[in-house]
Amino acid sequence: MTERPGIVVTGASGRMGQMLVRTVLGSDKARLVGAVERAGHPWLGQDLGAAMGGADLGVTVTDDPLEAFAKAQAVLDFTAPAATLEFARIAAQARVVHVIGTTGMSAEEIAALEPASRHAVIVRAGNMSLGVNLLVKLTRMVSAALDEDFDIEVIEAHHNQKVDAPSGTALMLGEAAAEGRGVALEDVADRGRDGITGARKRGDIGFTAIRGGDIIGEHDVVFAGAGERLTLRHVASDRSLFAKGALRAALWGQGQKPGQYDMMDVLGLN
Amino acid sequence: MTERPGIVVTGASGRMGQMLVRTVLGSDKARLVGAVERAGHPWLGQDLGAAMGGADLGVTVTDDPLEAFAKAQAVLDFTAPAATLEFARIAAQARVVHVIGTTGMSAEEIAALEPASRHAVIVRAGNMSLGVNLLVKLTRMVSAALDEDFDIEVIEAHHNQKVDAPSGTALMLGEAAAEGRGVALEDVADRGRDGITGARKRGDIGFTAIRGGDIIGEHDVVFAGAGERLTLRHVASDRSLFAKGALRAALWGQGQKPGQYDMMDVLGLN
Amino acid sequence: MTERPGIVVTGASGRMGQMLVRTVLGSDKARLVGAVERAGHPWLGQDLGAAMGGADLGVTVTDDPLEAFAKAQAVLDFTAPAATLEFARIAAQARVVHVIGTTGMSAEEIAALEPASRHAVIVRAGNMSLGVNLLVKLTRMVSAALDEDFDIEVIEAHHNQKVDAPSGTALMLGEAAAEGRGVALEDVADRGRDGITGARKRGDIGFTAIRGGDIIGEHDVVFAGAGERLTLRHVASDRSLFAKGALRAALWGQGQKPGQYDMMDVLGLN
Amino acid sequence: MTERPGIVVTGASGRMGQMLVRTVLGSDKARLVGAVERAGHPWLGQDLGAAMGGADLGVTVTDDPLEAFAKAQAVLDFTAPAATLEFARIAAQARVVHVIGTTGMSAEEIAALEPASRHAVIVRAGNMSLGVNLLVKLTRMVSAALDEDFDIEVIEAHHNQKVDAPSGTALMLGEAAAEGRGVALEDVADRGRDGITGARKRGDIGFTAIRGGDIIGEHDVVFAGAGERLTLRHVASDRSLFAKGALRAALWGQGQKPGQYDMMDVLGLN
Repeated sequence: MTERPGIVVTGASGRMGQMLVRTVLGSDKARLVGAVERAGHPWLGQDLGAAMGGADLGVTVTDDPLEAFAKAQAVLDFTAPAATLEFARIAAQARVVHVIGTTGMSAEEIAALEPASRHAVIVRAGNMSLGVNLLVKLTRMVSAALDEDFDIEVIEAHHNQKVDAPSGTALMLGEAAAEGRGVALEDVADRGRDGITGARKRGDIGFTAIRGGDIIGEHDVVFAGAGERLTLRHVASDRSLFAKGALRAALWGQGQKPGQYDMMDVLGLN
Repeated sequence: MTERPGIVVTGASGRMGQMLVRTVLGSDKARLVGAVERAGHPWLGQDLGAAMGGADLGVTVTDDPLEAFAKAQAVLDFTAPAATLEFARIAAQARVVHVIGTTGMSAEEIAALEPASRHAVIVRAGNMSLGVNLLVKLTRMVSAALDEDFDIEVIEAHHNQKVDAPSGTALMLGEAAAEGRGVALEDVADRGRDGITGARKRGDIGFTAIRGGDIIGEHDVVFAGAGERLTLRHVASDRSLFAKGALRAALWGQGQKPGQYDMMDVLGLN
Repeated sequence: MTERPGIVVTGASGRMGQMLVRTVLGSDKARLVGAVERAGHPWLGQDLGAAMGGADLGVTVTDDPLEAFAKAQAVLDFTAPAATLEFARIAAQARVVHVIGTTGMSAEEIAALEPASRHAVIVRAGNMSLGVNLLVKLTRMVSAALDEDFDIEVIEAHHNQKVDAPSGTALMLGEAAAEGRGVALEDVADRGRDGITGARKRGDIGFTAIRGGDIIGEHDVVFAGAGERLTLRHVASDRSLFAKGALRAALWGQGQKPGQYDMMDVLGLN
Repeated sequence: MTERPGIVVTGASGRMGQMLVRTVLGSDKARLVGAVERAGHPWLGQDLGAAMGGADLGVTVTDDPLEAFAKAQAVLDFTAPAATLEFARIAAQARVVHVIGTTGMSAEEIAALEPASRHAVIVRAGNMSLGVNLLVKLTRMVSAALDEDFDIEVIEAHHNQKVDAPSGTALMLGEAAAEGRGVALEDVADRGRDGITGARKRGDIGFTAIRGGDIIGEHDVVFAGAGERLTLRHVASDRSLFAKGALRAALWGQGQKPGQYDMMDVLGLN
């Protein structure tokens, strides 16, 4: 029987890094074998478990990614664009799966991953939640299957501290719905409905944003036709979703051919 | 055992009139004993059942309300303000319960019902649906019980032909929520949320309007707090609700003292 | 520009037949060109519109299907197995699309459609609702994409007169979920949960049935994982759904190669 | 302006105790002034903040409740029956509000609180969640307002480790619904619906239990009538609800007359 893949977490001391660590430790499908931090970080040389305030884990925090990656089968990396590019180079050298959840990468930075992806598997996604990625896919497919007799509404709910509406994920769902119909979202988006609006315009994609309490994130895509309604709903109830998605991507990447992938590939939905 | 109350329907040939007729016929708690139409109406003198395209009912359509009311215990009246005022006068004379679902009455017209209500029971409501009236009451109560740690959102969904947003019922629910908190709705209403809105303002009452398909009418009042959410939801799935509410009011009115009442009284919620 | 396809309705006087007629009349994508009833039916020779109690439609009810089919491009047929086999033979002769919503066909009867399907398009489905067919497809796909870390629950709600639980559609959804996972539903179905049940068994597919009021039919398939939940929901609010699905199938069938199809093909989901 | 009430937490080192401490610290309406643990506990004499692994709070853990209570206006107590009876005696002596969330108290133990409640305010509840208490109250009221034309269904969803169905809270809601109708729940409860059930029996109260993922707790009470449905829903998304409810009770208790109260009193719903 094959051993469970060994995982390295970069930026292991951060909020997301620690969540990744706990997720790997809690899984019976993977082992934690390394933790990387930047040069000068106070945790360097310490046991990761002790540094996190718990029992020893037998994993020493290091600032030498090559040494850490060499013992591993995958790297979970939610750091910053510049660090991620460097990690991609080293992961390619070590032939390990590089799971990238780093946000804010420019088109140039994304393009710069290409050489590495010729030697190793890279999985990169803006949102690592399995459910949300699946919802995007389903939305595109249902939108393509149903015609404009079905009115599409994207409804999202978030906590009362959120400053923008609709959410980025809601817009991503709207994009998928528009793609499914072969139209541009900006031509059909109906936002901020209020007052004397007139009847709903056929083909529009409506957005509504609910705000209250500490709702983590809920998204509904409604297809409302004559006499029936189909709703695709995702409810997030735990912020550790990204970490779990990243681990799943790392496991999936084992045995794949070198190349760039996203969560749709991981889910077998492309 | 007492007999089932006899009911007269005014404006019996109209869409709402026919629905009232069918509702009375379908009930085992009441009997249909009269049908009134305006002078000159083609149905006058015909059997109501035959005129509606079915079997005879033994009820002849008449333009003499006093004759009809004299044989009855209650009148269901969804006509027009002027006719309703005349019917109120005659119902008072006949001492029968007058259930008024007529909309668009001015404050003067409503005041003009007062003399009649000294002699007979009048039940008048803008919305005869039991559920919606109950929802208004519950909203006011919950809003008073919970403080501003709970964010209030009113969410409604209607068919794609509706021209205004939010719905009148949603605004009525918002008013009830504001009353529960002792604030004025216009000071706290947050409508048409879109773009960079900033964090939700404490104490606001948010409104969102979903439009699609042939949804008859759905209203949610959400109280979203830290770690919990209470939702009061009403879903209408049949336009006959108003008729059923009216009949219930007619039955309730039997044996009440003369006066003006609304659906809250009928439901025992005042 | 091509003309709108001409449609014949069989069993036109029945409850479902009349619903099909009204659906075709209400569509701007098809024309009603024929109405068939069995020999001896009182409507034969009458104008269909008049027989239905309305204005003339210029369509005379006939008991000669070949004559009717010859002028048409499609037949909508929700009758009985024996009649449907005969109609299939004639539709094949006339080279028109045969949409079959007839229920209760045995495996032999279904097999007997094969010769006809070599000459004409046959679309047959147990449930013509677009939404439900789509839901079945989505359920199978999501079930295959997610592993057993996601618990599957099928929840349905129907009116208080329904005598069995769970609904046939709920079981069909459960089958699709089981297929997606490559297991047999009978091995994993968890029904009638009550009392001291112990913890949920991993891999089970749970069923719950809500009964109340006049709910037409609502089905949820829930995939509940750690920290997130994906729900696929269908709500039927009008019994005319089957008629609309049948018309869609008839339009889709125009220009298809002869053969047997189902609603999945119509929706482009196979 | 009056000072914020000072709060003591008993059993401060436990899981619930620490949650109570964090809730008081996070509130701008109360101050933490004391922390009690049992004799021999390792935290005694330490600063509570340091013992909890954080910064000092200026509160030393003590095993002398009288000393702690004497400086406070309220005590939050989720310990065990015997300890709670002792704390009640001391709270009465100190004239401070005693909020009791202790579970598993026998009828005798509850009766033994009576002498204390002649001198001080006691608030005791099996479930301190504001929302759930409100839901119970609303359920009773709506059940009383609507007749048996409305079918009542109680639907709950919990995580996949829960071993019993329906949940205790669902049964409490069912009791409230039965009370509202003046019937005994055992005479009308319809549980574990499956197979050929026959039509729903008028007056029954149905229960269904959904199990999946890590759902903390969701309860719906549905009143399904002809053409409309009213749903009262509570969703818990954070286990700290009990702590927040307890603090609210402590604040409410300030200035009340001595006596025994429950969360209904706190919410102004009795």
